[in-house]
Amino acid sequence: MGKDGKILTVDTINPVVKKAEYAVRGKLAMRADEINQAILHGDTRYPFDKVAFCNIGNPQQLQQKPITFFRQVASLCENPELLEHPRRDLLKLYPADAIDRATTLLEHIGSIGAYSHSKGVPYIRENVAKFIERRDGYPADPHHIFLTQGASAGVQLIMQTITQSPSTGFLIPIPQYPLYSATLTLLDATPVPYYLYENKDWAMDVENLAGSLRTARDKGIDVRAMVVINPGNPTGQCLSQDTIRHVIEFCHKERIILLADEVYQTNIYYPEQRPFHSFKKVLRSMGAEYKDQELFSFHSVSKGMVGECGRRGGYVECTNIDDAVLDQLYKMASISLCPNVHGQIMVDLMTNPPKEGDPSYPRYREEYDAIFESLKRRAALLAQCFHHMEGMTCNDAEGALYVFPQIRLPKKALAAAKEAGLAPDAFYAFEMLEKTGVCVVPGSGFGQEPGTLHFRSTFLPPEELFTKFCARIETFHREFLDKYKD
Amino acid sequence: MGKDGKILTVDTINPVVKKAEYAVRGKLAMRADEINQAILHGDTRYPFDKVAFCNIGNPQQLQQKPITFFRQVASLCENPELLEHPRRDLLKLYPADAIDRATTLLEHIGSIGAYSHSKGVPYIRENVAKFIERRDGYPADPHHIFLTQGASAGVQLIMQTITQSPSTGFLIPIPQYPLYSATLTLLDATPVPYYLYENKDWAMDVENLAGSLRTARDKGIDVRAMVVINPGNPTGQCLSQDTIRHVIEFCHKERIILLADEVYQTNIYYPEQRPFHSFKKVLRSMGAEYKDQELFSFHSVSKGMVGECGRRGGYVECTNIDDAVLDQLYKMASISLCPNVHGQIMVDLMTNPPKEGDPSYPRYREEYDAIFESLKRRAALLAQCFHHMEGMTCNDAEGALYVFPQIRLPKKALAAAKEAGLAPDAFYAFEMLEKTGVCVVPGSGFGQEPGTLHFRSTFLPPEELFTKFCARIETFHREFLDKYKD
Repeated sequence: MGKDGKILTVDTINPVVKKAEYAVRGKLAMRADEINQAILHGDTRYPFDKVAFCNIGNPQQLQQKPITFFRQVASLCENPELLEHPRRDLLKLYPADAIDRATTLLEHIGSIGAYSHSKGVPYIRENVAKFIERRDGYPADPHHIFLTQGASAGVQLIMQTITQSPSTGFLIPIPQYPLYSATLTLLDATPVPYYLYENKDWAMDVENLAGSLRTARDKGIDVRAMVVINPGNPTGQCLSQDTIRHVIEFCHKERIILLADEVYQTNIYYPEQRPFHSFKKVLRSMGAEYKDQELFSFHSVSKGMVGECGRRGGYVECTNIDDAVLDQLYKMASISLCPNVHGQIMVDLMTNPPKEGDPSYPRYREEYDAIFESLKRRAALLAQCFHHMEGMTCNDAEGALYVFPQIRLPKKALAAAKEAGLAPDAFYAFEMLEKTGVCVVPGSGFGQEPGTLHFRSTFLPPEELFTKFCARIETFHREFLDKYKD
Repeated sequence: MGKDGKILTVDTINPVVKKAEYAVRGKLAMRADEINQAILHGDTRYPFDKVAFCNIGNPQQLQQKPITFFRQVASLCENPELLEHPRRDLLKLYPADAIDRATTLLEHIGSIGAYSHSKGVPYIRENVAKFIERRDGYPADPHHIFLTQGASAGVQLIMQTITQSPSTGFLIPIPQYPLYSATLTLLDATPVPYYLYENKDWAMDVENLAGSLRTARDKGIDVRAMVVINPGNPTGQCLSQDTIRHVIEFCHKERIILLADEVYQTNIYYPEQRPFHSFKKVLRSMGAEYKDQELFSFHSVSKGMVGECGRRGGYVECTNIDDAVLDQLYKMASISLCPNVHGQIMVDLMTNPPKEGDPSYPRYREEYDAIFESLKRRAALLAQCFHHMEGMTCNDAEGALYVFPQIRLPKKALAAAKEAGLAPDAFYAFEMLEKTGVCVVPGSGFGQEPGTLHFRSTFLPPEELFTKFCARIETFHREFLDKYKD
């Protein structure tokens, strides 16, 4: 570090900051941004007119319309002067139940420009508790609910609190959503991977789990928590009630805290065969013997049919957590003052949407169902598209917003990747971006079984473009295989 | 840890989480919440009808009205259907410039329900850069600006990145805003206190600074950054251009990165004698010799005349920061996906309010000036109120939202505090809360010179209640001194 050089360089910053990786918005996504900007500024050298950002579950970036009722209420809360207009004027612009809901919310919130309670507005937490009770059939306590800035902030807070030392271990699925690996790196805690089985539709195997745990504990790792993503990200599988029960039995026996990432709980495409079961519900159904099993459950306004990512809203429910630890979490929440109030309002709306008989119900129902049905069709289409390509296999997405196809690349492509200094899946994904404008995330960003290659793609591009979108990828894939054939 | 006990207890959680303290929303604030809830539910045992939350700079909680134009634009952005109405209908509810601004913002943002660029919407960052250029008279680069979820999130990100090891030291003022001490505890980094001089209107003394630095470096602490809060929190002083220049010279000579917390930059009550000078401007004015001085400057929508705390919006400008470090900060921002878009919109509005000639300008000007003048009057009133009480002295607030009076308590009060297991200033503040409903923060939460006692109070209660408010505190104080007189 010379006298004239910078004090802060990549070699002098926090080493965990340097080490952390987050592929969803990594180098490939930055290149995609660059191309998109270039096109917007008139660059015509690309064989497509716009980048399709399939790297991230960001529905409204890809033209998914927001739910009208939600935005109406949010808009009224923003501008309390509107509510002072004569109601007959306002009724031209807003349905009566949106006006009523905004009025009720503001009564409890005061101004949305004020810091709220650090755990979130008490009234909204009560509404979330009622939602959980309706969903699960078991009671929920608003004092055990923390509203958060998206699920990510909740996950980070809980993982930070659990991490006692660098030897604290977290079981995480492979493949996983890289928020988990990045957070573990930043906390200098230890990831303990357990595999999901691709040839069994990405099923979890509790015996394999036990093996991963044993190996880690033998190495002296204090494995004290386990992350489950259900429905899976990037893998899209939905856990059966039996599997969840086995996982809970395993964690209870092994004294492991459960973290259940359930942000895709309404993205369930085969509800007859593969319904959503919350960990909280299954845990409660297992009776008194399991009354001490510690569980944190995460939810978000960013996914489902809501898709309000930009708002950063979510919550964590703490089940069977020590009261003194809840106080510590409250203190931590207070250091960041409060989750943004707009996100909190959306949590209220997501968990308590219009009910049958409400003026806004028909429109809400129609919008919700249209998004759901379209996502379901697109999920199947994209999986089929990939599954039928040469050298590729792809499980159906039972839930969530992604497929995670496996690709087998010819040796020449592997060699070319090596030469380019890229992982083979990253090499493939970069080529796809340059040729088609489709931005996906290489499987190496999520973890994958050694020797396998994957990528994650959302199925969020607008449905009317889907045939074209799939055809573009097929053409690219064929040409890629031709170019690198052995 | 028994077989049946919890895995997660205060003794097994992350030790830095357990250790962190944040007095602004600490035990006293929780007790205030409790009392307030009790009163709302009909409890009549308190000699007041409502708690005055003077513990936190939360203007809209204490009836400060939001700026109308800001909320109009935000409300239109929330509900894009409004913008599809015939303009003549909409013009009954919204002024033309609010409609235009919302339209322009949405053109650049797309949907506010989508994740934005992780550094914030590029168009808004360009507008922030223009604001800084107008303010300082020197260029600003939108690529060096990160929008953040309030200034707190920006501060935490930068401090995390700077912390290389537990021996990394940060110079922090005493008294300080406890975000800094809490963040240092959580990062396991080392605070290096420097004192502000109460009898010189909380002035900074660069020689004393050099002494603090020397002592710390002699102990092997790698002091590499310095936090300056200007205007001061909790102390309200505004730094002169000369002092800022001396601080920059000192940091440049000693190879120290500057963190300038400038969130109160418009809360300047004596602009003739004590105007605001940004560190960025003074640094640029010092010419080429200082072109390597690294500086992070923070701003927020929560303070000033905006007061939109609940929205969690802010930004950090990075001056003379290594490009590779900027890339690392971008990566870190991407792990949290993006700052909430509502906060970003408010940053745009705060930095680019209506201009003279715009339809909304007269109302904006009137609202802004009314808030400013009222804050200025209340600042002076509250300082006078405290200054004239027996055993109390209080500097005027030149800026920010707080006064920080010093109290001298009789020995009997000190003994009673000891018996209650409380710091004397906390004991006093608890008594004040129970007797008057006024919630302040004990000086021990900010740090204070050993042997002195203080508390911080905002001057945010509504002006029409101010005489009553001051009288209530005076009566309490007299009775307290009577009760404990030696």
